[in-house]
Amino acid sequence: MEWKEVPNTSPRFVVFEGIDGSGKTLQLSWLSAWLQKRKYKVFVTEEPMRESITGHFVKIALKSKEKYPPEIYLLLFLQDRINHIENYIKPALEAGKIVLSDRYHFSTLAYQTAQGIERSKIDGVLKALNYEILQPNLTIFIDVPVEVALERIYGRTKGTVDLYEKEEFLRKVRENYLELAKEFNFLVIDGDRDPEEIHEEIVKRVGKFYP
Amino acid sequence: MEWKEVPNTSPRFVVFEGIDGSGKTLQLSWLSAWLQKRKYKVFVTEEPMRESITGHFVKIALKSKEKYPPEIYLLLFLQDRINHIENYIKPALEAGKIVLSDRYHFSTLAYQTAQGIERSKIDGVLKALNYEILQPNLTIFIDVPVEVALERIYGRTKGTVDLYEKEEFLRKVRENYLELAKEFNFLVIDGDRDPEEIHEEIVKRVGKFYP
Repeated sequence: MEWKEVPNTSPRFVVFEGIDGSGKTLQLSWLSAWLQKRKYKVFVTEEPMRESITGHFVKIALKSKEKYPPEIYLLLFLQDRINHIENYIKPALEAGKIVLSDRYHFSTLAYQTAQGIERSKIDGVLKALNYEILQPNLTIFIDVPVEVALERIYGRTKGTVDLYEKEEFLRKVRENYLELAKEFNFLVIDGDRDPEEIHEEIVKRVGKFYP
Repeated sequence: MEWKEVPNTSPRFVVFEGIDGSGKTLQLSWLSAWLQKRKYKVFVTEEPMRESITGHFVKIALKSKEKYPPEIYLLLFLQDRINHIENYIKPALEAGKIVLSDRYHFSTLAYQTAQGIERSKIDGVLKALNYEILQPNLTIFIDVPVEVALERIYGRTKGTVDLYEKEEFLRKVRENYLELAKEFNFLVIDGDRDPEEIHEEIVKRVGKFYP
């Protein structure tokens, strides 16, 4: 099979962001299929990473019954991110692939600050390490109202989860995302529609970059 | 059984440090037995932590075949340390126990800098997090020449390990420890003797604090 070169001016590192239940994972996989049909080599990845133990450290800590200070989660997310960038994203980009990542550094900025870690701490740790986060060429933010997201996630388990607490938290996360959208120039997509419609809009907005 | 109160002026948080093969773990366990015979409540612990998954993250990463940038190990050691301090050491001290830790923050300072992480990065990350490492009341550094340590570790496997590389590395770690000994006022114990003799000296030097 003949692969196509990505045009130099087209986004090679594309990130999908959104609150839980926004539908970003589905949209990412559909964009990936669309790109591959057009003969582009795609590397689909996610955070926390599935491919490496550093991602599993994060997942295990999140599920642990032990309670940790928020700094611990931050350090775990950052070690996974650095591994992701250095050992997965950069090599894939160098191999000429389009990288599609389900969540990235913006998730840390949106979620960890909602959990009480100041943004200055996150930036400060990276600065202390003299480590610069690789910036994506395009970040697609799938925006949905918190109520819609919660219904999608908890539709079946309504009443068994502390929905109020979750709602307040996701509301803060969404606010953070909307601020980040301005700061980092996200492509904001209305996610409160049929998945097919959302996919069509994404293709309409970014398809031109991948002829 | 009646437990004794630790006098207010006596060290409650005691750390053992030394290069691999220094014999510190044995000395720690003997001091622990000595203290318990005198009816002090002792909490024996170590880094990376055995009790918590945060310590296992460090151990798994160290044994992984994947190669990571040195920043990743630093972040992993720090998340384990913060958990160790907040969820284990502080509660044990509050419960009136003497805490004996096999390795602590000085191991990070001695080993990670030998692996190419500048001291300023380690201090910088903690400062960015606004997190202050709990200082031990007493740090016992068991000092052995690198050759002695290597013979103890690799006595049986001589020739199968890249000893030269390991030797250069441990030499640098030991130098770092000797500098830290001045900065942090370690109790330096000559570890190139019979374990019984070393134990006797430790008891002679610190036993007075625990009547």
